[in-house]
Amino acid sequence: MNFHILTRFPDMVEQGLSASILGRAEQAGLISVHAVNIRDYTEDRHLHVDDYPYGGGAGMVMQPGPVVKAVRSVQEKLDRPARVIYLSPQGKTFSQPMARELAREEDLILLCGHYEGLDERAIELVVTEQVSIGDYVLTGGELAAMVMVDAIARMVPGVLTNSESAEEESFMQGLLEYPQYTRPEVFEGKAVPEVLLSGHHANIAAWRRRESLRRTLAARPELLDRAELSKKDRAWLDELRREMSGPDGGDT
Amino acid sequence: MNFHILTRFPDMVEQGLSASILGRAEQAGLISVHAVNIRDYTEDRHLHVDDYPYGGGAGMVMQPGPVVKAVRSVQEKLDRPARVIYLSPQGKTFSQPMARELAREEDLILLCGHYEGLDERAIELVVTEQVSIGDYVLTGGELAAMVMVDAIARMVPGVLTNSESAEEESFMQGLLEYPQYTRPEVFEGKAVPEVLLSGHHANIAAWRRRESLRRTLAARPELLDRAELSKKDRAWLDELRREMSGPDGGDT
Repeated sequence: MNFHILTRFPDMVEQGLSASILGRAEQAGLISVHAVNIRDYTEDRHLHVDDYPYGGGAGMVMQPGPVVKAVRSVQEKLDRPARVIYLSPQGKTFSQPMARELAREEDLILLCGHYEGLDERAIELVVTEQVSIGDYVLTGGELAAMVMVDAIARMVPGVLTNSESAEEESFMQGLLEYPQYTRPEVFEGKAVPEVLLSGHHANIAAWRRRESLRRTLAARPELLDRAELSKKDRAWLDELRREMSGPDGGDT
Repeated sequence: MNFHILTRFPDMVEQGLSASILGRAEQAGLISVHAVNIRDYTEDRHLHVDDYPYGGGAGMVMQPGPVVKAVRSVQEKLDRPARVIYLSPQGKTFSQPMARELAREEDLILLCGHYEGLDERAIELVVTEQVSIGDYVLTGGELAAMVMVDAIARMVPGVLTNSESAEEESFMQGLLEYPQYTRPEVFEGKAVPEVLLSGHHANIAAWRRRESLRRTLAARPELLDRAELSKKDRAWLDELRREMSGPDGGDT
C-alpha cells in the first residue's frame, strides 16, 4: 500500500514515520510513504502557496492552484484514481473500523492543510472525503496524517506479525486491555498477581477477561454496549457492578 | 511550558515537532520539548527495556524499572512535581477543553508506551492520568504525544498571534468553520461567492455564520446541542432544516 502525503513540511512527515513497525514494513516493501511538497507546484515566484481570505478575516488560506496540481500529479502516476483525504476538523471522526477499511486501498492520498484552511474549490475539485482524528485543534494536518498512516499501515496484511495480530483481535472485541506485567516479579514491594505465575492457562485467561471487563466498566462503560459478551461475561459484569456500588450495594 | 516526552524514539519526536508554529514558539522560548530516551535508564546490558508478559501472550511489555527511573529523573530537576500522562487506548479521550486545561501547567511529562503495554506497577507508581487521542490503535504512544504537544502548545499564552487567536475563538463557539476562499477569483470556472467580494462586512459575517450552521447541521449535528446560538441562528437553523428535508418538507 502506498501513502502519498501532500504537505508543506515533507521532512517532518518522513522522519516522523520511520520508527518501529512502520520502518520495518517499509523495508519489507509492504507499504511506502511518499511526502510531496505542495510548494513544488506553485507558480508564484516567491513560492507562496497561501494568500489572504476573500471577505477578510485572520490567517492565510491555501490557494487552490498548487493543491489541485499536486493531487493531479500524483493521480497521473497511478493505475486508477486514488481516494483523496483532506485532514480537517470538519471531517468524519477517524476510527479503527475506518482504518481497517482504508487498509484495503492500493494508494491513498492524504492532503495536509493548515488551521486557516484550504480554498473551498480545491476541496470540491479533488477531495473525496474529509477526516478528523479527534475533537481538538492542531497546527496543521501533518500529525493527523501521520496518525492515520500509522493506524492504517498496521492493518495492511503482513505488516503485523502473527502474534501482534492475535493481540489486535483481543482489542477488536471492544474491551479495554487487561493489566500487563513483566520482570521483575516484585518491583518496589509490588508483586505480580499470583495467578499469572501459576501456569494455569484457564485461570489466567479468566482473570484477564475479568480485569478487561472491570476496566471497561470503570473507564468506558459505553463500549460494553457494542462488545461481544458471553453469558459468563454478563454474570461477571453483574458481580463487578455490585462490588463497585459499595459494601452493601448488592443487598438492596 | 516544558514538555518532557519519555520515549524509545527520541529522534522521531524531536524532528516531528520542529515545524511551523511550534518551531517558532520554541525559538521564542515560550515552550520547550525535551525527548528523554527510556533506554538510557535501563540496567540491562543489552539495553532492553521490555520483556515477555507474565502469564503468557503475544508481544512484549515495557518493564517498570527503566520507566519509573526515567520519570523520577525528570521530576527531580523540576521545582514541583509535574503531572505524568501515559498515552494509552485505555485513557480518557483527549479534547480541546483538556488541551486548554493542560496548557496551564509549567511542566508536563508524556510517557510513550507501545501497543503491548507497560507493566501495571509503573502505571500505579508514577502515572497520574491516562489519555487516548481517539478510538484507533497506534504502533506506539509517540504520535499521540506529538498530537497532544501540538494541541496544548497552541493554547499556551503568546504562542498564537492575535489574529490566530481570534480565529481560535470562532472555533471555540462549537461550530464547524465556514468555507474559505482566496486568489484567484475564478478557478477552473468556479467563482468565489459574490458576497465575499462585496466589501459589505455585515453581509459577509451573516453569510459565514449561516454556512457554519449549515455545515454543522449536515456533518456534526450533535455539536449544535452544545453551541452558543443566538435567536437569529435558531431561525436560520429552522430554515436550513426545511431546505434539507426536501422541496415540500416545510409544508407538512
